[in-house]
Amino acid sequence: MKLLIENVSIVPMTANDESIEKGYIVIADNCIEKIGPGEAPADNYEQRLDGHNQMALPGFINTHTHAAMTLLRGYADDMPLMEWLEKKIWPLEARLTAEDIYWGTMLAIVEMIKSGTTCFADMYFYMDEVARAVEKTGIRAVLARGMIGVGPENEQALTESRELAGKWQGKANGRIKFILGPHAPYTCPPDYLRKVMELAEELNIGLHIHLAETAGEVADITRIYGKTPTAHLESLGFFEHSVLAAHCVHLTDEDIAILAKYQVGVAHNPESNMKLASGIAPVPKMLEAGIPVALGTDGASSNNNLDMLQEMRTCALLHKVNTSDPTVIPAYQALEMATVNGARALRLSSETGQIKVGMKADIILLNTAQAHLIPCYDLVANLVYAGQASDVNTVIVDGNIIMQDRVLKTIDEKEVLSQAQRICARFR
Amino acid sequence: MKLLIENVSIVPMTANDESIEKGYIVIADNCIEKIGPGEAPADNYEQRLDGHNQMALPGFINTHTHAAMTLLRGYADDMPLMEWLEKKIWPLEARLTAEDIYWGTMLAIVEMIKSGTTCFADMYFYMDEVARAVEKTGIRAVLARGMIGVGPENEQALTESRELAGKWQGKANGRIKFILGPHAPYTCPPDYLRKVMELAEELNIGLHIHLAETAGEVADITRIYGKTPTAHLESLGFFEHSVLAAHCVHLTDEDIAILAKYQVGVAHNPESNMKLASGIAPVPKMLEAGIPVALGTDGASSNNNLDMLQEMRTCALLHKVNTSDPTVIPAYQALEMATVNGARALRLSSETGQIKVGMKADIILLNTAQAHLIPCYDLVANLVYAGQASDVNTVIVDGNIIMQDRVLKTIDEKEVLSQAQRICARFR
Repeated sequence: MKLLIENVSIVPMTANDESIEKGYIVIADNCIEKIGPGEAPADNYEQRLDGHNQMALPGFINTHTHAAMTLLRGYADDMPLMEWLEKKIWPLEARLTAEDIYWGTMLAIVEMIKSGTTCFADMYFYMDEVARAVEKTGIRAVLARGMIGVGPENEQALTESRELAGKWQGKANGRIKFILGPHAPYTCPPDYLRKVMELAEELNIGLHIHLAETAGEVADITRIYGKTPTAHLESLGFFEHSVLAAHCVHLTDEDIAILAKYQVGVAHNPESNMKLASGIAPVPKMLEAGIPVALGTDGASSNNNLDMLQEMRTCALLHKVNTSDPTVIPAYQALEMATVNGARALRLSSETGQIKVGMKADIILLNTAQAHLIPCYDLVANLVYAGQASDVNTVIVDGNIIMQDRVLKTIDEKEVLSQAQRICARFR
Repeated sequence: MKLLIENVSIVPMTANDESIEKGYIVIADNCIEKIGPGEAPADNYEQRLDGHNQMALPGFINTHTHAAMTLLRGYADDMPLMEWLEKKIWPLEARLTAEDIYWGTMLAIVEMIKSGTTCFADMYFYMDEVARAVEKTGIRAVLARGMIGVGPENEQALTESRELAGKWQGKANGRIKFILGPHAPYTCPPDYLRKVMELAEELNIGLHIHLAETAGEVADITRIYGKTPTAHLESLGFFEHSVLAAHCVHLTDEDIAILAKYQVGVAHNPESNMKLASGIAPVPKMLEAGIPVALGTDGASSNNNLDMLQEMRTCALLHKVNTSDPTVIPAYQALEMATVNGARALRLSSETGQIKVGMKADIILLNTAQAHLIPCYDLVANLVYAGQASDVNTVIVDGNIIMQDRVLKTIDEKEVLSQAQRICARFR
């Protein structure tokens, strides 16, 4: 099966000067076979997409979310963190069934595809349902069953994670990857983390953890272990595994050096950190240290959306004002964070995050013929500073068109919206 | 002419508990005649809009922009402020013709209407062209010819402003209002500001000024006049006029007390202030002091869009993280800033900014049946934290439908986009 995208502007994210004003992309099966300027070589293309007035770029990679939390979007906002968690979020989460998680994840995937996300990293529960939704919808995902070491279900979380990895690893033509999800240093004591690391070693898979999200966490961990959360994890040998660390808001310079040394993937979640008033992560410093810093939305209950274009823009703007330096995180770097850095952070950079021969075809097309994207002196600046989710016109994952002209091809969108509304009626 | 909007959710912005889950709005000529829950009273309605799956709210009020600067969108980004101005923005602005300003403003108005803005405050040049664009498109505007007191054109700016006010005041069925636009304390010396104030008094009109945007400005003014910019303007009697002050980033507590005492309208431009790394305005303190703080996008060259939904969300998120308090600027207050506070800041609160009997019908309808707005526990939280410009479906200004189902009724959108592209080709 050969698919040709022609007459399209291409931002391949291989290097800042490698954009193509008008060119073509050939997709053979699930991979990118050719890319170039001008007209495509003649061939037997089963399918053609006209890219006139469109730009092609690698799909966005949302490196930290809890997809099914779309069911809690707007359920409680503008509250102090612990009150929000204890009085609102946790009690509602305790009521969620496996079926709820399936439809909540489907709702999230609809929103993600419609805003150009082609791959996401999820940490939640009933992950069998999440994997089913990923399989069905055609999106790519790195999944982890959240593991709490202090609760009664800590052993079950290990057993389930082993089963999930056994059942789903590499399934859906390789679109599904399972890793382990020890929730955070403050919910997973050292003994438990050691068990998690043993399992990671046995299964040869990575780890997804929340790290240094709040000042309170840093104070607590430092009081108990005499070390920052990052230094604490290092001392346990945690970073000798492939680690994706979400948030990393409160870091010392030594912490940054540790994350750089082990090339820990960092999922920066600027909007969630702002909305919960957690703080501002030292992203420019982390980037300078060579850490693969990527972007995530976090769950829709603390954002309240899964829109990676917004996350990119907010990231670029936030760090400029925070450092009093308008040159910090220029547009291209913000777009790198949302694409190629996302792939690095998820250890998928040989597969996705760039439009490059041999990589999986995870590509989005955006409609550029719109008032808010005119004039166009700089495609990338327009995209980052003025792009909207609704500009995403076509989404291709693993070589399959899963949205065309804003119509979802693998999902009955109406059914998903109505199932989500039915479920949420219970929580009013 | 009677227009009925029925079966619609209404957020009137009169008070937080006055939202209507399903109701109607009757518009007679250019004003709101009735509003209520349930079914509308029987009457001879010439036109009906079905509000099923839509929410109605007052149109957004963009209290500070330079509309024609859409022509400079993405022309130069991620640069230090003075280099950006001196090497990029000012040289290009010097090349803009009256015709450019017309089409640049048209482009801005297309973007504004499509993102739900029904009224904007503009400060730029060739304002005759701007007024023509406002008249033609059906939007509402408060216009000011930018006045630089130190340049060779300082007298001309006074003469032109007088002529513009004479020609346009109250025109287009009252949709156009002219005020004076002394650019800033650092470009308008006291003698010049006195002349401006005399003219404002003579014409009985207000003033639109940039105030305390950067730390550099505050340092310069303090060095020259021994006072902060705000205290300096107060000492000149400036605030005895109706003043709209843009930015107000660097303020002392005394400055805030002055702005509160005179009820100066403040146009807060969070995204521009972030992008240029100007700083973070003390908005929660200003709101607490009772200052009518509204929102603006600033020009598209420092934003780079005119999307008030984004501005609202950024405002709410930015001040939460800046104050380490997630309860600061809750969703409803952010929406107030974008609507009712905008009207207060522009001295239009008897006309617009709320859906209320007797007010002008400046109303927008947003499509709520979308993945990113589901579930809906709280209409306002969904709108502020997850709403997108493209959710705006219908826009009514002064009782006229100027966009319906995302189709502009008063503007040939294709022509505007192509004229803007033609003009900007000169600047490449």
